[in-house]
Amino acid sequence: MTTDLNKYIRNAAFLDKVVSAEEAASWIEDGMTLGMSGFTLFGEPKEFPRALSERGQKEKFKVNLFTGASMGPAADQSMAEAGIINKRIPYQGNPVQRKKINAGEVLYIDQHLSHMAELIRQGVLPQVDYAIIEAAAITEDGQIIPTGSVGNSPIFVQTAKHVIIELNTSAPREYEGMHDIYVPGPAGENARKDIPVYDISTRIGTVGIPVDPAKVRGIVLSSQPDIPSPLFEPNEETQKIADNLLEFLRAEVRSGRLTNSLAPLQSGVGSVANAVLNGMRTSEFKDLVVASEVLQDGVFDLIDAGVVKFAAGTAFSLSKKRVDNLASDMAKYAGKVVFRPQEISNHPEVIRRLGIISFNTALEADIYGNVNSTHVSGTHMMNGIGGSGDFARNARISIFVTTSTAKNGNVSSIVPFVTHVDHTNHDVDCIITEQGYADLRGLAPIEAAERIINNCMHPDYKQQALDYLEEAKARGGHTPHVLEKAFSWHTHLAEHGTMKLSK
Amino acid sequence: MTTDLNKYIRNAAFLDKVVSAEEAASWIEDGMTLGMSGFTLFGEPKEFPRALSERGQKEKFKVNLFTGASMGPAADQSMAEAGIINKRIPYQGNPVQRKKINAGEVLYIDQHLSHMAELIRQGVLPQVDYAIIEAAAITEDGQIIPTGSVGNSPIFVQTAKHVIIELNTSAPREYEGMHDIYVPGPAGENARKDIPVYDISTRIGTVGIPVDPAKVRGIVLSSQPDIPSPLFEPNEETQKIADNLLEFLRAEVRSGRLTNSLAPLQSGVGSVANAVLNGMRTSEFKDLVVASEVLQDGVFDLIDAGVVKFAAGTAFSLSKKRVDNLASDMAKYAGKVVFRPQEISNHPEVIRRLGIISFNTALEADIYGNVNSTHVSGTHMMNGIGGSGDFARNARISIFVTTSTAKNGNVSSIVPFVTHVDHTNHDVDCIITEQGYADLRGLAPIEAAERIINNCMHPDYKQQALDYLEEAKARGGHTPHVLEKAFSWHTHLAEHGTMKLSK
Repeated sequence: MTTDLNKYIRNAAFLDKVVSAEEAASWIEDGMTLGMSGFTLFGEPKEFPRALSERGQKEKFKVNLFTGASMGPAADQSMAEAGIINKRIPYQGNPVQRKKINAGEVLYIDQHLSHMAELIRQGVLPQVDYAIIEAAAITEDGQIIPTGSVGNSPIFVQTAKHVIIELNTSAPREYEGMHDIYVPGPAGENARKDIPVYDISTRIGTVGIPVDPAKVRGIVLSSQPDIPSPLFEPNEETQKIADNLLEFLRAEVRSGRLTNSLAPLQSGVGSVANAVLNGMRTSEFKDLVVASEVLQDGVFDLIDAGVVKFAAGTAFSLSKKRVDNLASDMAKYAGKVVFRPQEISNHPEVIRRLGIISFNTALEADIYGNVNSTHVSGTHMMNGIGGSGDFARNARISIFVTTSTAKNGNVSSIVPFVTHVDHTNHDVDCIITEQGYADLRGLAPIEAAERIINNCMHPDYKQQALDYLEEAKARGGHTPHVLEKAFSWHTHLAEHGTMKLSK
Repeated sequence: MTTDLNKYIRNAAFLDKVVSAEEAASWIEDGMTLGMSGFTLFGEPKEFPRALSERGQKEKFKVNLFTGASMGPAADQSMAEAGIINKRIPYQGNPVQRKKINAGEVLYIDQHLSHMAELIRQGVLPQVDYAIIEAAAITEDGQIIPTGSVGNSPIFVQTAKHVIIELNTSAPREYEGMHDIYVPGPAGENARKDIPVYDISTRIGTVGIPVDPAKVRGIVLSSQPDIPSPLFEPNEETQKIADNLLEFLRAEVRSGRLTNSLAPLQSGVGSVANAVLNGMRTSEFKDLVVASEVLQDGVFDLIDAGVVKFAAGTAFSLSKKRVDNLASDMAKYAGKVVFRPQEISNHPEVIRRLGIISFNTALEADIYGNVNSTHVSGTHMMNGIGGSGDFARNARISIFVTTSTAKNGNVSSIVPFVTHVDHTNHDVDCIITEQGYADLRGLAPIEAAERIINNCMHPDYKQQALDYLEEAKARGGHTPHVLEKAFSWHTHLAEHGTMKLSK
């Protein structure tokens, strides 16, 4: 065993730390805070949370779970099922966890992904007791080589009392060299330097996360592969949204504000984003740079097609096809992809400097351009704001996409007043549905409302939106509303199963 | 005249450009975009807008008015009265202008103050036809020395087709050397450098705004002094808010997260901010640095008291007492104060790097910590978001202050659901009223609601807020609401003149 492990654990100070997942899990005490690696199901420990959840099925204790972002079945789901999570920060996307959150059983804090490391660094959030980090290797000089995500792992390792490494022997060796670990110093006058990302492909940090061996209490072994995400094949609706987005970008090029190389691109995860990336494969856009949070299949397809020349992010989110070929892919994309901590990939300084074009998904938008990314009917959490706020606020162009309707046409995604605001109209430049796009830049509220209704709404809802706007305008004001009817579409939906007011 | 003017216009290429305000105003054509200096009533041209408004009383034309921020009686008010404004961006605070905006007669775009220069640079907003910049002098090497604000003047001068300088011979000569003009390059990969503000007192730019003499079409002379703002003396309520804010900061020091030197401070303008600054004069806090947008009386009082060692901003907002002594004050504060463009003072890169503590005023907040800074009853614009969003999003600690009630107790400033969201709960760390403070960091929504209601609400409204929360919680969800009652306090106010539901 030891001989074999030498390949992965290349520093002798770590070799005698191997323990079972059960033993590591036994160290966790009620009330502790765990900082786990993991982001969009990639790079998360699997054996440790399984063992901890099994212990949680027999024993009564609760922990705070801090992560990069969404975790898979091993962490978010099994720990939620075991009922061992007190606070959960900063993002999740698991149905079981979601149910617990909406039932008030898990205290969830939905947070800008770039802010989490700052809050830990400042000591605002409780100190992490155990950082549990999935690793592909431990280097000669004692660095943890992460696997398919970086996320918050560096700040967890830096600030935790103890570290547990989950060494995944099935992780491609080619992960090594793909990460670029840079941790900013404390904020303050004459304290922090610039975040030196100017050219997205220039390395600014180390290949792994430096760790003091004395802080590493145990190494758990795993051989479980990364968890694939569903493959989002474009359908007619997402294809139309993608086409409209490309058309908007073409208008920017025609205006002279952009060239065919556009600007560094950030895309949210999911079907529309994948359709957009897919549409770029055969478009006139070329020599693109991706400066995103999550790199999904479409980005690699664009690298294959020679359209994207470099991509930076903090995590993978890949379909089964890509996961199965991860090792050979990693070799292929070496030098064309880099993963940085999420506070760097999503850092306002970097996003503003690079002038990123950002597109993210809205759950609903309102006629004035405010966007709800998180709360169904304003109350029930779907996933979380994730990095969308980091990008939307500081991007060169901030785009939100959504289908114009949902639930078989019974829900309009454009409403008079969003039931929860994640992105205010100040941070929303363009709204795109399968109906068209509304470029809101330089528009006053009433102009924006007219453009959104006319360009983006489904025909079934246009008239009732125009009726609302007319009634509101009669009352006056810079941003006219009829407050007692602002949520009438939602309450009608709750009562009648549709937002169509005539039904 | 020329001999005298030599003192102010120290470059011969500019000397023959002097024209009357009327002549300069005659150059403006219908549909043009004007970029005027001016921010919180300081540093704005006075003769030019007067002449333009007089022309507007006789002739039919409209212009877009872009500024730094709020303008005084000469620009915002007289131009609004003349009905010659089409679009107004990015901030205003004048009662006449406000009325026109809420009547739909002026198309107002309420914008993050740090974003305006980027939108101009990118060509998203129409090109400025004429930049009209108040100046204290024109230097030998052709730089415009601004007066009491920098605002957006550098980007206006850089991108405008023509420049009109309004030379104010009454402006203190001591303005020269107080400005630090730095204009970022275009965003993009390998394009823009860091914004090199690390030590707030280190100069990064030039003393004035460089301008090509060929671009300067005319110089208008003025001798009108800067416009004072009301002096905000603390009253019982603002004093209590200030005390609560200082108590919150003391708790941060006790926790070890801050020292008595705190962190660079940004404060909004107004009575509460002034009361806070006033309270710091005799507190244990010392060696403070101010990294703000607007510098008001209180900052200078703190410099006088030896509490603040350096202050940076983009504009003054001073009372009559301070305005009357401006020249001698400028001499006194030389080397302790610097003004930079608003895209630098409010730049996300700088705010995040320095770890600024930000406090701004809320019009209303809701039980979950969302803040409305701008819209009365969700519809009628008060002033604008200004720089509050720039700071709140990127600050180390983002604080919002408000009295717990308004309108003789008939309006609760804490409501179930704000009628307009300028700052989402993700960007609001602490809410402070005269009742107390609610530190929201690390709290899930329901925890936040309980803390805000208990700590910040006026006793007259606590029970009805708790009733709302109970009814909402019974319906479930991460952020419980009763949508059909979310705005019921506001509609009750409209019908009965009070938010007290029992009346």
